[in-house]
Amino acid sequence: MKLSELAKYIDAEFLGLDRDISSLSGLKEASSSQISYLENSKMLDVFKQTKAGAVIVSKEFAQYAPKDTEILISDNPHLSMAKASKYFAKIPFDGSKKPFIEKSAFVEKDVFIGSETVIEEGVRVMSGVRIGANVRIGKNTLIYPNTVIYDDCIVGENCIIQANVVVGSDGFGYAHTKEGEHIKIYHSGNVILENDVEIGSGTTIDKAVFGSTRIGKGTKIDNLVQIGHNCETGQSCIIVSQVGLSGSTKLGRNVIMGGQSATSGHLEIGDFAMIAARGGVSKSIKGGETYGGFPLVLQKEWLKTQVKLAKFLKTFQGVNNER
Amino acid sequence: MKLSELAKYIDAEFLGLDRDISSLSGLKEASSSQISYLENSKMLDVFKQTKAGAVIVSKEFAQYAPKDTEILISDNPHLSMAKASKYFAKIPFDGSKKPFIEKSAFVEKDVFIGSETVIEEGVRVMSGVRIGANVRIGKNTLIYPNTVIYDDCIVGENCIIQANVVVGSDGFGYAHTKEGEHIKIYHSGNVILENDVEIGSGTTIDKAVFGSTRIGKGTKIDNLVQIGHNCETGQSCIIVSQVGLSGSTKLGRNVIMGGQSATSGHLEIGDFAMIAARGGVSKSIKGGETYGGFPLVLQKEWLKTQVKLAKFLKTFQGVNNER
Amino acid sequence: MKLSELAKYIDAEFLGLDRDISSLSGLKEASSSQISYLENSKMLDVFKQTKAGAVIVSKEFAQYAPKDTEILISDNPHLSMAKASKYFAKIPFDGSKKPFIEKSAFVEKDVFIGSETVIEEGVRVMSGVRIGANVRIGKNTLIYPNTVIYDDCIVGENCIIQANVVVGSDGFGYAHTKEGEHIKIYHSGNVILENDVEIGSGTTIDKAVFGSTRIGKGTKIDNLVQIGHNCETGQSCIIVSQVGLSGSTKLGRNVIMGGQSATSGHLEIGDFAMIAARGGVSKSIKGGETYGGFPLVLQKEWLKTQVKLAKFLKTFQGVNNER
Repeated sequence: MKLSELAKYIDAEFLGLDRDISSLSGLKEASSSQISYLENSKMLDVFKQTKAGAVIVSKEFAQYAPKDTEILISDNPHLSMAKASKYFAKIPFDGSKKPFIEKSAFVEKDVFIGSETVIEEGVRVMSGVRIGANVRIGKNTLIYPNTVIYDDCIVGENCIIQANVVVGSDGFGYAHTKEGEHIKIYHSGNVILENDVEIGSGTTIDKAVFGSTRIGKGTKIDNLVQIGHNCETGQSCIIVSQVGLSGSTKLGRNVIMGGQSATSGHLEIGDFAMIAARGGVSKSIKGGETYGGFPLVLQKEWLKTQVKLAKFLKTFQGVNNER
Repeated sequence: MKLSELAKYIDAEFLGLDRDISSLSGLKEASSSQISYLENSKMLDVFKQTKAGAVIVSKEFAQYAPKDTEILISDNPHLSMAKASKYFAKIPFDGSKKPFIEKSAFVEKDVFIGSETVIEEGVRVMSGVRIGANVRIGKNTLIYPNTVIYDDCIVGENCIIQANVVVGSDGFGYAHTKEGEHIKIYHSGNVILENDVEIGSGTTIDKAVFGSTRIGKGTKIDNLVQIGHNCETGQSCIIVSQVGLSGSTKLGRNVIMGGQSATSGHLEIGDFAMIAARGGVSKSIKGGETYGGFPLVLQKEWLKTQVKLAKFLKTFQGVNNER
Repeated sequence: MKLSELAKYIDAEFLGLDRDISSLSGLKEASSSQISYLENSKMLDVFKQTKAGAVIVSKEFAQYAPKDTEILISDNPHLSMAKASKYFAKIPFDGSKKPFIEKSAFVEKDVFIGSETVIEEGVRVMSGVRIGANVRIGKNTLIYPNTVIYDDCIVGENCIIQANVVVGSDGFGYAHTKEGEHIKIYHSGNVILENDVEIGSGTTIDKAVFGSTRIGKGTKIDNLVQIGHNCETGQSCIIVSQVGLSGSTKLGRNVIMGGQSATSGHLEIGDFAMIAARGGVSKSIKGGETYGGFPLVLQKEWLKTQVKLAKFLKTFQGVNNER
C-alpha cells in the first residue's frame, strides 16, 4: 500500500516521498518495506536508529527520524498504528494452497489445514482440528480434537496439545479514541511452542502484536489457562489450571505458577520461582523463592500474616464489643 | 400444548377454561398464547396487569389474576415453571431447513448452519463453526474456527468472534425439589451481540431465560470470560480475561472489568466505572470511580489498606512475641 | 511388553522371571498381567497384598513383595512409572472399528465416533462432536456442538453436555527428573458422568490416572469449570462458573461451590457444605456449613472479620498519621 493512501485512512499527515509499504512492525525489527510507530519518548533512541521505511510519529519527535525513513505525523501515533494494522491484516485461515503433509503423519479426514502449512513426520492430527496457513507442526506431535492453531504459528517436536485448545488467537489490544471507542490492533505476530511442550484442554494462548509469544521447551500448561500476547516462558515451567498471564509477562526457567494465580503483565519472574495458588504478581520478582497472596509477598510471610491477623482480630473483637 | 395436559406434568391444579399454550415467557412480556409464573409477591403488581394466557401461581395470589388469564395453582410455582420449560424446549441445532447465505459471504465447507439462519454480506465463517437455527450474522463479521453460536442469537455487523467461543449456551438455572434435586430451567431467550463487538477465544456467553443477554456496541471481551444469563453491557466496555459476570449483571457504558474480577449478579455498575484485577463486586456501584478488592472498596482505599495492614502487622508481631 | 524390555526403558533393574505385561495400574487394582509401582512407605501394606504381576519399587522395599509378583528396582519408582506409562498408552481417538449407534439416536453427519463406542436410544449428538473409542453415551443424553469426549469415558442417561466441553482429557501429572524435566504420566483411567448430569460450555474434566474421575447423579456444573483427575462429586452438587477442583478432591452430596472458588486437592468436603464465591479450600471440611475466604473459614466469620478489619484500620490510620 502507498504511504500517501495509508495516511488518509489513519488520520496522519504525509509530505514525504511516496513508497509502497507491505506490513507493520516494531521499531527495532522493521525493514525498509515496513511501517512502524513511535508511541512515546521511551523509544526515542530506538527511533533514531530504526531501519523502518516509514514511521508514524507525533510532530515533536519527527525531527529525530533517520534520513531514509519517511514520516507520517499523527496526533495519536498509537491510534494511527491501530487503524493502519487493519489494512495489513491477512485473510485468516486461508486454504487456497496445499499444505505439505509428511507420509508418516496421520491426519484425520475432517480437519482443516491451511495454505502451505507443514505437518512433519509422525504427527497425529485428530478429528476437528483447525490449523491455519503457514504453520509448522514438528515431528511426533499429538493434536487432540477440535483444537485451533492460527496462521503462522510454530509447534515444536513431541508436543501434546489436548482438546479445544486455542493457539495464536488475536491478543487483547486496542487504541482508544477521545470518544471512548476501542480501535483494534490487528496482531501480525505468532505463537511458538518449543519442543516437548504440553497444553491442557481449553487453554488459550494469544499471538504477539509483532514477533512471538513463546512457550519454552518442556513447559507444561494445565487446562483453562490464559496466556496473553507477547508472553515468554523459559524451559520446564509448570503452569497450573486457570492461571492468567497478562501480556508481555516473562517467566524464567522452571517457574511454577499455582492454580488461579495471575500476573499483571510487563514484568519478569526469575528462574525457579514458585507462585502459590491465587498469588497475584504485580511487579517483577527474583527467582528461587516461593511467593503468595495478593498483593504478593513471600509465601511464608503470607501464611504468618494470615495467622497473626486471625489472632489479632480475636482480641480486637473484645475491645470493640466493650465500647 | 393444552393447559389441562401441562398441569399434570408440573404438579399444578387447573380448573379453568382449557386452551392451547405455545410457549413460556416472563409475566411482563407474555402474550395470550403463552404461560408465565408468579414467583413471589414482588411481582404481584405486574401479575395483576399481565397479558399472559395462563400463569402458574400459589394459592394465596390466585385471586389477583386478570380476568382473561387462566390460573394453574402450584405449591412451588418456580419449580412448576422449571418442569414446564422442558415441554416448550425446541430441538436444538435443527438443520432441516435451508439457511439464507448472501453471495458475498464466505462460508467454509465444513461448518454447520441451522434452519433459516441468515448470513449477511461479507461475513466470513471459518472452518468448524456451528451456528444454530434462526440466527442472524451481521455484515462483515468474522467468525473464527470451532466457535458455536446457539439458536436464535443475533450477531451485529463488523463483529469478530475468535476461536472456540460459545455464544448462547443455556444459562445455569435450576429449581430445587424438597429432596435436593435440581430441575433444569430450559432457557428460551437468546444472546444479542451489537455491532463492533469482539469476543476472545474460549469465552462463553449464556442466553437469557426469557429475552436477551446483550453485549453493547463496541464492547471488547478477552479470552475465557464467562457472561451469565440475562447480563447486559453498555457500549464500549472492556472485559479482561477470566472475568466472571453472574446472571443479570448490568454494566453501563465504558465500564472496565480487570482480569479475574467478578460480580455476584443482579446488580448494576455505573458508566465509566473501572474494576481492578480480582475485584469482587457484590452490590451495585456508581460509575466514574475505580474499585478493587473483595469485598469491593474504592481502589485507592484498597491500596492504602494493604499498606497499613502490612505496617500494623509488623508492630503486632513484636507485641505477640513478647507474650 | 516383556518386563526385561520395559526395564531398559525406565531405568530399572530387573532380575526376575520374564513375563508379558499388558498395562499399568494402581497397587490395589492391578492384576497378574499388569505392572504397578510403590511410591513410598505409606502404601507398604497394600504392596504386601498386591496381585500385580510386577511392581516398580525402591531397593529398600523390594523384600516385601508377594511371592507371585516380579520386582523392578528403581531409584525413583514414580519417575520409572511415568516413563513406563508411555509404553502402555493407546493410540487416542481410534476410529478403525465401527461404533454401535441405536436407531432412535440422532447423530449429525459431521461428527467423529470412535471404535466400538455405544450410542444408546434417544441420544442427540450435534454437529462437530468428537467422541473417542470405547465410550458409552446413555439414553436420551444431549451433546451440543464441538464437545469432545475422550476414549473409555462413560456418560449416563439424560445428561446434557453444552458446547465446547472436554470430558476425559489427560490429567496434569508429571514425574520430575533431577535436571528439572517433567516426565508425563500417561493417564489410563476415564471419566464417568452419572445420570442427569449437566455440564456447562467450555468446562474441562480430566480423566483419572487409574480408575475414574466421577461426577455424581444429578450434579450440575456451570461454564469454564476445571475438574482435575480423580475428583469425585456426590449426587446433586452445584458447581458454579470458573470453579477449579484440584486432583483427587472429593465432594459429598449436595455440595455447592460458589463462582471462582477452588480446592487444593486430596481433600474432602462433607455433604451439604456450601463454599461461597472465591472461597479457597485447602483442607478437608465437614458438611452442613457455609464457608468462605482464603484461607477458608466459616462464611459468617469471614464477613465479621472483614467488617472488623475495616473498622480497626480506620482507627489505626489516625494513630499512624500522628507519628
